Amino acid sequence: MAGLFLSLEGIDGSGKSTQGRRLAETLRRAGHAVTLTREPGGSPGAEEIRRLVLEGASDRWSAETEILLFTAARRDHLEKTIRPALLRGEIVITDRFADSTRIFQGITRGDLAGVVDRLHALMIGIEPDVTLLFDLDPALGLSRAQARPGTEMRFEDMGLAFQTRAREGFLALAAREPRFRIIDASGDPDTVAARVLDALRPVLPRI
Amino acid sequence: MAGLFLSLEGIDGSGKSTQGRRLAETLRRAGHAVTLTREPGGSPGAEEIRRLVLEGASDRWSAETEILLFTAARRDHLEKTIRPALLRGEIVITDRFADSTRIFQGITRGDLAGVVDRLHALMIGIEPDVTLLFDLDPALGLSRAQARPGTEMRFEDMGLAFQTRAREGFLALAAREPRFRIIDASGDPDTVAARVLDALRPVLPRI
Repeated sequence: MAGLFLSLEGIDGSGKSTQGRRLAETLRRAGHAVTLTREPGGSPGAEEIRRLVLEGASDRWSAETEILLFTAARRDHLEKTIRPALLRGEIVITDRFADSTRIFQGITRGDLAGVVDRLHALMIGIEPDVTLLFDLDPALGLSRAQARPGTEMRFEDMGLAFQTRAREGFLALAAREPRFRIIDASGDPDTVAARVLDALRPVLPRI
Repeated sequence: MAGLFLSLEGIDGSGKSTQGRRLAETLRRAGHAVTLTREPGGSPGAEEIRRLVLEGASDRWSAETEILLFTAARRDHLEKTIRPALLRGEIVITDRFADSTRIFQGITRGDLAGVVDRLHALMIGIEPDVTLLFDLDPALGLSRAQARPGTEMRFEDMGLAFQTRAREGFLALAAREPRFRIIDASGDPDTVAARVLDALRPVLPRI
């Protein structure tokens, strides 16, 4: 497929959403066509499924049903937003993709890791060309996330132990998958943005 | 698992819903505890997913996304309605189950048959103990279905050729799977109900 598919991953408060917006701007100024999107959601159908998953009591859906709903949303996001943009030759930046499901489900229901992987292979198939992992001390991430108004993800309620396990999970995944670039997410946004561009220069000579 | 898991399958207008209600009544009168349910839907969460799938334009979801949503609904139905009833030792009668997905998706997107089966094996696992296939001339089924007010399934719009292929698909599946009992669905409801009881007597001596 033409285009370039980038995903941004990391624990809550790692600054990846802010950095995603800045990166999209920088790339557009450099003359690239960019689609900036996010999960869960990212297409009208996927946003409806997102609402169905995130509304209501946290035990409303079992882990298995939730994985199926997230995968349905991801399939719609892929078909309606990501793949068309890649076929137009654009750079697609998605704030979270399948790795988030792997990590967050892996913590709460580690026995389902194999199911998550097989479901991804069967129904999604594609992986990002490059995944930027925004790596940060979980205590710092949590204090940043709690300072932010209107957070919606349930995962943020799960505290420091949860965020610590998520960080460890992301780092272990990054060690196994060559598509990962680890970004030190500590420091002010300008410093982190410069690190992002340094990491991307080998694949994007034009920035 | 304790209990007995029955599914009712067949083309539209085959009378399986009417026969499902009659069978539930007969079994209750004979002293059995019965849960009568249906797909898509069958639990509050699955009904919400059902609405999401069936509302809107027919091309709103791709075949792949629709299969994922139906499987999510089925998983919820299994966890919240079917499995608890079986664990209480009840007879569960479901009006459609996974075979409907196999047949109807198999017709519109035959290339996805393998995907449907692998997804079922991965996320659902269970098959009914007995499946009653209500077999009928598709022209007769269609005229019955069209005479009925407020039909909701999209499949009914697809005409005689579609119903004919669905019947052939159900019969081919029944030939491969020993859990099927084929019920001649022609004739008046009393006659068909008697055929249903005859077919079930070997597994349910108490009726």
